[in-house]
Amino acid sequence: MTTTTDNKPDNKSINRILLTGAGGGLGKVLRQHVSAWTSHLRLSDIADLGEARDGEEIVQCDLADGAAVMKLVEGVDVVLHFGGISVEDKFEPIMQANILGMYNLYHAVHACGVKRVIYASSSHVVGYYPTTELVDADMPLRPDGFYGLSKCFGEALSRYYYDRFGIETVCLRIGSSFPAPLNPRMMVTYLSYADLLELIRCAVFTPRVGHTISFGSSDNASRWWDNRKASHLGYRPADSSKQFAHQFADNIAYPAADDATARFQGGPFVIAGPQY
Amino acid sequence: MTTTTDNKPDNKSINRILLTGAGGGLGKVLRQHVSAWTSHLRLSDIADLGEARDGEEIVQCDLADGAAVMKLVEGVDVVLHFGGISVEDKFEPIMQANILGMYNLYHAVHACGVKRVIYASSSHVVGYYPTTELVDADMPLRPDGFYGLSKCFGEALSRYYYDRFGIETVCLRIGSSFPAPLNPRMMVTYLSYADLLELIRCAVFTPRVGHTISFGSSDNASRWWDNRKASHLGYRPADSSKQFAHQFADNIAYPAADDATARFQGGPFVIAGPQY
Amino acid sequence: MTTTTDNKPDNKSINRILLTGAGGGLGKVLRQHVSAWTSHLRLSDIADLGEARDGEEIVQCDLADGAAVMKLVEGVDVVLHFGGISVEDKFEPIMQANILGMYNLYHAVHACGVKRVIYASSSHVVGYYPTTELVDADMPLRPDGFYGLSKCFGEALSRYYYDRFGIETVCLRIGSSFPAPLNPRMMVTYLSYADLLELIRCAVFTPRVGHTISFGSSDNASRWWDNRKASHLGYRPADSSKQFAHQFADNIAYPAADDATARFQGGPFVIAGPQY
Amino acid sequence: MTTTTDNKPDNKSINRILLTGAGGGLGKVLRQHVSAWTSHLRLSDIADLGEARDGEEIVQCDLADGAAVMKLVEGVDVVLHFGGISVEDKFEPIMQANILGMYNLYHAVHACGVKRVIYASSSHVVGYYPTTELVDADMPLRPDGFYGLSKCFGEALSRYYYDRFGIETVCLRIGSSFPAPLNPRMMVTYLSYADLLELIRCAVFTPRVGHTISFGSSDNASRWWDNRKASHLGYRPADSSKQFAHQFADNIAYPAADDATARFQGGPFVIAGPQY
Amino acid sequence: MTTTTDNKPDNKSINRILLTGAGGGLGKVLRQHVSAWTSHLRLSDIADLGEARDGEEIVQCDLADGAAVMKLVEGVDVVLHFGGISVEDKFEPIMQANILGMYNLYHAVHACGVKRVIYASSSHVVGYYPTTELVDADMPLRPDGFYGLSKCFGEALSRYYYDRFGIETVCLRIGSSFPAPLNPRMMVTYLSYADLLELIRCAVFTPRVGHTISFGSSDNASRWWDNRKASHLGYRPADSSKQFAHQFADNIAYPAADDATARFQGGPFVIAGPQY
Amino acid sequence: MTTTTDNKPDNKSINRILLTGAGGGLGKVLRQHVSAWTSHLRLSDIADLGEARDGEEIVQCDLADGAAVMKLVEGVDVVLHFGGISVEDKFEPIMQANILGMYNLYHAVHACGVKRVIYASSSHVVGYYPTTELVDADMPLRPDGFYGLSKCFGEALSRYYYDRFGIETVCLRIGSSFPAPLNPRMMVTYLSYADLLELIRCAVFTPRVGHTISFGSSDNASRWWDNRKASHLGYRPADSSKQFAHQFADNIAYPAADDATARFQGGPFVIAGPQY
Repeated sequence: MTTTTDNKPDNKSINRILLTGAGGGLGKVLRQHVSAWTSHLRLSDIADLGEARDGEEIVQCDLADGAAVMKLVEGVDVVLHFGGISVEDKFEPIMQANILGMYNLYHAVHACGVKRVIYASSSHVVGYYPTTELVDADMPLRPDGFYGLSKCFGEALSRYYYDRFGIETVCLRIGSSFPAPLNPRMMVTYLSYADLLELIRCAVFTPRVGHTISFGSSDNASRWWDNRKASHLGYRPADSSKQFAHQFADNIAYPAADDATARFQGGPFVIAGPQY
Repeated sequence: MTTTTDNKPDNKSINRILLTGAGGGLGKVLRQHVSAWTSHLRLSDIADLGEARDGEEIVQCDLADGAAVMKLVEGVDVVLHFGGISVEDKFEPIMQANILGMYNLYHAVHACGVKRVIYASSSHVVGYYPTTELVDADMPLRPDGFYGLSKCFGEALSRYYYDRFGIETVCLRIGSSFPAPLNPRMMVTYLSYADLLELIRCAVFTPRVGHTISFGSSDNASRWWDNRKASHLGYRPADSSKQFAHQFADNIAYPAADDATARFQGGPFVIAGPQY
Repeated sequence: MTTTTDNKPDNKSINRILLTGAGGGLGKVLRQHVSAWTSHLRLSDIADLGEARDGEEIVQCDLADGAAVMKLVEGVDVVLHFGGISVEDKFEPIMQANILGMYNLYHAVHACGVKRVIYASSSHVVGYYPTTELVDADMPLRPDGFYGLSKCFGEALSRYYYDRFGIETVCLRIGSSFPAPLNPRMMVTYLSYADLLELIRCAVFTPRVGHTISFGSSDNASRWWDNRKASHLGYRPADSSKQFAHQFADNIAYPAADDATARFQGGPFVIAGPQY
Repeated sequence: MTTTTDNKPDNKSINRILLTGAGGGLGKVLRQHVSAWTSHLRLSDIADLGEARDGEEIVQCDLADGAAVMKLVEGVDVVLHFGGISVEDKFEPIMQANILGMYNLYHAVHACGVKRVIYASSSHVVGYYPTTELVDADMPLRPDGFYGLSKCFGEALSRYYYDRFGIETVCLRIGSSFPAPLNPRMMVTYLSYADLLELIRCAVFTPRVGHTISFGSSDNASRWWDNRKASHLGYRPADSSKQFAHQFADNIAYPAADDATARFQGGPFVIAGPQY
Repeated sequence: MTTTTDNKPDNKSINRILLTGAGGGLGKVLRQHVSAWTSHLRLSDIADLGEARDGEEIVQCDLADGAAVMKLVEGVDVVLHFGGISVEDKFEPIMQANILGMYNLYHAVHACGVKRVIYASSSHVVGYYPTTELVDADMPLRPDGFYGLSKCFGEALSRYYYDRFGIETVCLRIGSSFPAPLNPRMMVTYLSYADLLELIRCAVFTPRVGHTISFGSSDNASRWWDNRKASHLGYRPADSSKQFAHQFADNIAYPAADDATARFQGGPFVIAGPQY
Repeated sequence: MTTTTDNKPDNKSINRILLTGAGGGLGKVLRQHVSAWTSHLRLSDIADLGEARDGEEIVQCDLADGAAVMKLVEGVDVVLHFGGISVEDKFEPIMQANILGMYNLYHAVHACGVKRVIYASSSHVVGYYPTTELVDADMPLRPDGFYGLSKCFGEALSRYYYDRFGIETVCLRIGSSFPAPLNPRMMVTYLSYADLLELIRCAVFTPRVGHTISFGSSDNASRWWDNRKASHLGYRPADSSKQFAHQFADNIAYPAADDATARFQGGPFVIAGPQY
């Protein structure tokens, strides 16, 4: 473990946050901003994360390695769990990283007395709902691939740890968090980095969250998700995909009736698997 | 058929839109704006529509005449169906214009391969709900007259063509679309022309709509309709009846308990019929 | 009008019942049993009904003829409306018999002060729901053809007359009322004649029914319809299709995934139309 | 009764409003603003209210005294019922002031033909819902003490008078109406004075309210209450507790799992009782 | 206190049951049967209960007398609370017996560590629902008089004691428990004595009940109440009003549209009050 | 592979059923009865199954071995998937048998064109609901341990294969299927062997099941599960735990408020894990 700070108190509100998946797309964004909340930002990834910056602790760690995860979590107050595989893939690597990895994490969270987990779930847990339907946090799961399936597992596992031990988790069903929407579908699912960060801030600092499932999108004009059941988090998106509307011309080249990528919310994910 | 344009391509996103009821109150408004989206705007009405302007095609047509409607729809991509009778009337003319007319239209839509219909339904399909209740798109119909009843029929017919053939329709349960609210009830039901146009734009250009029912009102303070089930359309009203509030003084001359026009959302419609 | 009885009082509880469609499949069954409840059983059909029996009045009548219907309904206490077209057909005859006919009937019912109507609606108003879904009286309509569509219209019309004038109607969404199920689908939709009669008895004699929608099936093992919202009628089926189970062998010649007649509750109706 | 104005007409929209509890925290706020709507503002309290100002009538009155209440209500058009005990207390004083007092009020309201009551109910009628749940007006009551219980009684009593006599009431489930939030919980429940006044204005001047239950909070980021069922009132809060956010630092000193004051919406009220 | 048994153990499963209202209609029925479950059956009423029989303890007690109630409850395991006023009456006696009395009882139940209360609530807490609607335990209360209102209070009070202290209560919304239905309305609301006893048995002996609301009727053909939310009690009525059907002839002397006693479930109660 | 029959046709309705977990408690029961439906009953287990009987094929197979599972499924029409671990255990064996095993099975089912899977899920997917709540198939999952969690995974995986490929599965949330209830909790959860078999028969032979979730219990008096959403299966239990009621005396040794095994439906399972 590389660490560049001592354990000396400062005026930040959290002693230690662990960010898993710190080398991933969103992990990199979070790394820059989350340090404002915490004296020690522990970062982990299966890949090399480079040099620790001021206030950071870097731990290279495979989530499928239970003992390593147990060590990783020691001394941590809050976990932002963005690690694992975040695209469609074969089942076995997803099982190792996202299923076994999730189990390892909660085993450690339980053992180490971590206070709360913010879990990067995904809107792909409901990707097989039609794009003409409004989905909320209590509707049955309809994953659109092995990736979404692993996130279904993660939501259920964290629910169990809440019911069993009162360990609080906020599951974020993140839409598409990129600098800008990459296609018309993302006009609906877009979550700006600033809104993602605000959503995480709400999830971390709301006094009680129990086991909360929150969709993660900006205040886009079109919506597929009804986030009312997470109203207690106080998340109010400030951005909208509207600013990118000019990039996607209005037209009536409607998708064919049997085009599953247009018919279902998961978009291209619904046909990306299964990969055998 | 009068037409003032050739079939030459331009950069508009739709080749041909048919607007029925082009001589009606809303038809006249739409005629002015819809042309921006389409190379050929075909206009029809039972009454004379005058001279075709640039880009327009004018067809005088009785919707109850099946053969005429079949011809009317040929070559059309998208129909904005605002034709028929739009006030309370005796049953038989309503049956001819709105029931037989609707059948004729969908027969033609099916035969001609039209891509989508935007159907001017009406909030009078639920006009017999109390003004103290919030109504959504899935609640049972409670029409407030023969006019509303004909719109119930239209919604069900379009649902059938969607279930049977996948033909997409957006049913717009329009409130009161006028330059300004004419009475206190319309402070709730008001739909500005700009918002109407935006709603139609959303209905036309959303990639998939399936069979969608959307209420049509501006962002008025008081609401009787919960439009969440049309969230995928992305319609966000920009106007509000609030700007007209000064015209209707606050007072407590409350309506009598048995005043059906105040008790039910349909207002004056609920006692305008039945006309025998 | 042929009538074989005078207007003299007897001890039957209803003075005059009108049964429309008395020459149809169910009409013939009802004709035999309904006479037990009423001093005068007025029977009508577009076809010849033969000789009036004791206590019967026979009126040949086309429901599309408003003046004739007005005369037909005079002096009637309760209407059992089983008339009109009861199979999939072209739109125009259905419009005449089932839409215009329904309007004519309620015009007369209103004018003549009839106390209650029992309306033979049909489960085909929801025939486009999947066979794996449970449907109740408040769910949105999904008709499976022009016939079902005309019944949607009839339900909405009778709702209007209730909201407007308090005229009570029980809409019976009848499944398959035959001596026995004719195919495996009818194992689910079967309504024995005895149960049909009991359902009508409940609908006629329950003190208040308002506007009630009730599904009509026997106590078959498999169910597609949740009839709880008609619990106040007190209908408890006594028969079950189970007695016919031996006629339909268990097997796994499962229908193809794209076989609409197996996928949707309407069965063969869903592909019987539209007939142009 | 002290009164400083004659009964002469002026151009205010209401002849006489009665404000009970005029000496309480909210009563004092309302006294200053409500006079703008009414020619005669009758004020009552169990305590001395001092001198009547212009347009005011002052009546000292114990709500538990039926005869006094009957006199108090004479000549009144609209009642703003903010009287009674508004904190947790022993049962018997609450019963006298809030239960017997409420009965006395509605007896008088009925006898005197008052047109409408705006009733200061409380969010403590649902204080035992978890802070992670969204509550609406139709969910079962879960009071958090004798005070909340007395408000449950008041809501049910006013419902009875509506069902029985059509007397309209708006029950306001007020959150925390103070100049500013006093603790982090009130960041969720805060209702600014201006928003309270606007909510009352909506409740008084909406043409029909039937029996409406409306939550009362400003447009705070975090929400526990879904106020959609009061959408017809047209209440749109203009303020938010957000402006006070800097007073309550983000931190993760999460409440203990068995800390009922954090676990339930009622906050400190849930353990303030029962007082014997 | 008269008691005819010592405290010696026997093989009954409960040491001491308190039955309040033992002199009332249902109290007399219960007195005869409940003794089978308990070594000591403590009976109370405001009226004289006569001689204690074997195993009985008799305590004359006014429920409005807190000190007396405290003594009454001492040593009790389970309370069957059938005391108080059970018909429509003036408000003040109902307040004393049913509101103050209920408070006194739960104060004592809390103080004495009673394990469970079976509370005779009433279907009159929802008596203002139409007879054409199906009501369940979670729908908003609509009491039909002061009596029903006092039962609303009782349900809310017992909910509070459950949320606050975990004291379990089963609220029985009893229909019409008489030897036989006395009028056609009771064909729907009838609860035979045997079924009442079985319902109480379920309420007493189900291992956990939390705070349960159960409707109480026999397996009558017509139903207004959906009791699914009490399914864990295992109550299965064995009787039905059907056996009395011959006493109430089928007829179509339908009630007038404005006959509130037929329109609403409460029947004659809805116009029995308010008594001033 | 041991097989004792040739591939010769007989009059059974299914050519080949695969029963996994044939050596388990329920597997042994099914083995005896399922042979009546199929010409070839292929049995598998990780343990030795002994000699194949007439019409049986025996395959020893570890579900975690993908290649072996692929071979196991070849030539199969219908799978009854009762294999895997069926008690609480450490995570890794459960992951191998129930998660990887489930993936392997559906990979093979997909590859081999199996027509339908009947999946032994478990009521432990909702074991953390209170025993006072009624749960249906669409409510959020609340597993009570790693075992239940693995069944959550299995339900979601089978949903994916249905949405993706139309492969039909019936998930049976089996309660307690033993010769008799072993404790009072099982009086609620009991599923007799005969009813289990009938439920499987319904699941196999219903023409279309899509993706159905059905609870599995007998017609016990107390119920925690509302099985309406599986009504199309036509399952009607014939047995009840009532016949065993005498074995569990009524008593009021109520469980302590913090006794999780009584508070939650999962009973002893809720504290059996997690096992590390």
